[in-house]
Amino acid sequence: MHTRPISNLQSPTPETHSPTTSPFLAACWRQPTDVTPVWFMRQAGRYMPEYRALREKYGLLEMMRIPELAAQVTLMPLRLGVDTLILFADILLPLVALGFDLTFVPGKGPVLDPPLRNADDVARLRPVKVEEALGYVLETVHLVRAAVEGRVPLIGFAGAPFTLASYAIEGGSSRHYLRTKRLMYEDPQTWHAFMDRLADVTLAYLRAQVRAGAQAIQLFDSWVGALSPADYRAYVLPYSQRILDGLADLGVPRIHFGTGTAGMLPLLREAGGDVIGVDWRIDLDRAWALVGYDVGIQGNLDPVVLLAPREVIAREVRRILRQANGRPGHIFNLGHGILPETPVENVAFVVEMVHQMTIDDGR
Amino acid sequence: MHTRPISNLQSPTPETHSPTTSPFLAACWRQPTDVTPVWFMRQAGRYMPEYRALREKYGLLEMMRIPELAAQVTLMPLRLGVDTLILFADILLPLVALGFDLTFVPGKGPVLDPPLRNADDVARLRPVKVEEALGYVLETVHLVRAAVEGRVPLIGFAGAPFTLASYAIEGGSSRHYLRTKRLMYEDPQTWHAFMDRLADVTLAYLRAQVRAGAQAIQLFDSWVGALSPADYRAYVLPYSQRILDGLADLGVPRIHFGTGTAGMLPLLREAGGDVIGVDWRIDLDRAWALVGYDVGIQGNLDPVVLLAPREVIAREVRRILRQANGRPGHIFNLGHGILPETPVENVAFVVEMVHQMTIDDGR
Repeated sequence: MHTRPISNLQSPTPETHSPTTSPFLAACWRQPTDVTPVWFMRQAGRYMPEYRALREKYGLLEMMRIPELAAQVTLMPLRLGVDTLILFADILLPLVALGFDLTFVPGKGPVLDPPLRNADDVARLRPVKVEEALGYVLETVHLVRAAVEGRVPLIGFAGAPFTLASYAIEGGSSRHYLRTKRLMYEDPQTWHAFMDRLADVTLAYLRAQVRAGAQAIQLFDSWVGALSPADYRAYVLPYSQRILDGLADLGVPRIHFGTGTAGMLPLLREAGGDVIGVDWRIDLDRAWALVGYDVGIQGNLDPVVLLAPREVIAREVRRILRQANGRPGHIFNLGHGILPETPVENVAFVVEMVHQMTIDDGR
Repeated sequence: MHTRPISNLQSPTPETHSPTTSPFLAACWRQPTDVTPVWFMRQAGRYMPEYRALREKYGLLEMMRIPELAAQVTLMPLRLGVDTLILFADILLPLVALGFDLTFVPGKGPVLDPPLRNADDVARLRPVKVEEALGYVLETVHLVRAAVEGRVPLIGFAGAPFTLASYAIEGGSSRHYLRTKRLMYEDPQTWHAFMDRLADVTLAYLRAQVRAGAQAIQLFDSWVGALSPADYRAYVLPYSQRILDGLADLGVPRIHFGTGTAGMLPLLREAGGDVIGVDWRIDLDRAWALVGYDVGIQGNLDPVVLLAPREVIAREVRRILRQANGRPGHIFNLGHGILPETPVENVAFVVEMVHQMTIDDGR
């Protein structure tokens, strides 16, 4: 199914992943492409039988921490014809480096222990040397780049400070983000100190991924839609901005993604990114107009549509491509991660359809 | 704390709740008011000690089904100075009338049994005569109207068809609305048949509430933000529209509320309502511009702000009033229901502040 990872840690030469050969990278820079590039958030995951087979033998964190396994999983979606790979990892790994204990509890999701609650907890956070604490992720990047032999690029990624902070403060997933927002409101100094640390670690982590060979990065601010635009501006924007700005000199495209952001898209764009990722709760054309045509747009199929009959999938794919209107800079994706219940063949169907429709379009 | 309900079922004369005496009703019609009216979704609830005291003696459904108790709870927030009451009931009561078994499971929320899954389940739904099946709600309206003696108006309400359908199909709350959307996509005929029934019952229920004395209504489409705008238009809008249109002849203002709707506000407005209720995920001024100034706007404080220090509360209230810009038609509210952890005194503080600030404004 994939080329066996080889141990050569040299990254392929830049030529093998230049925009001219990759529709994904070209679209990130809003260059015209023969086909609309397509990939899927969580495209390597439980919906794939080969993933489940491996998962039976290894724990989730184990699969991420053993570079050979993480590389193998990263490469799995190649068979579906996607236009880019994304590193198999979890946004919470930097929190482990900072000293949180991370476990995945079935039916509950990630648990972070002990949760961060005050200034003392921030002071206790461990210093992080990315190359040491997260070296296994960088090693995975090397292995994937070597194995994929330039056929498609590799996206590195990290969670954005707000989303990471919410997990650390709530101790896991949350519905109302009560503790997160209370810390923000009641003890802004501690909030800002924590966000500052998270921004530093995240920037160093993403820079290291690019140095290791990642050819694009995505910053996941998955839960930022829980905030009012005013709170986003006051408590979050400066930190995401610092990270995105801090990657500019590396020359790789930066995708800035969040869900529930329809009311704050101009602010996400202000925070930065060459491409803004949006969920399905807003029409793609309206979202693109809101962020401006001088950035690309990624999205925005409802992940549940992948469980629908083919005619519904086709209708929705067509609608999104019509809204993108052939404008260079659209990367087809879901509005959030693939659901575990998704039939694999429907994912392949969407890849083929997106490619075919753009070719039929005469581009 | 409140006038004891009397058994006179005659509604007060219309004069006692005319817009000229109620800033809430006046604002619904976008008439200038001395103060910006303010109320809170779930203003009668667990955050109040007197509610918790009563709740220790009675079950949740019992409190809704015994009109004297429901009326007593409805009246509780009067002491906070709110500009309107809202009926104490649950949006799921019409589902009980349709034949679903409803229980509230601590820590899990409402459970509806058996969940609706196919055409047979729709065919099995019971015919609903609102006056019989939901007569206790109408009786509560009578009791509240008599007790409140025209001091403030009373809002009646119902869940909108999509939100009700999602509970009925999922069997309770949901994160991804997988079953709901799959029914929509896989069996649109059954979907539309169910939505049709829900729209009929909801319209009859709301008309009965108004006939019983409710002076405004709110249609809660709380979870509609889970949908793409395209799906909202195809699968939901016609039913909410039929309900809202079907109330027009009654002459009471109609508030149309949803959360996570920043990407589909023009569609909510198209579905109808004299006032559109929005959550905090979009700036109030931008939301109002999107729905148009020929409707009122209700919102939009983040409920978590009520747990924040006073200076943060004051800052956020000021921001929202500034965004409303003194334009007639703003009803101050939260973006969703009051959280149980909310200090009662903070709620009273917001009421006073909203009233005071608009007076200082010289209106």
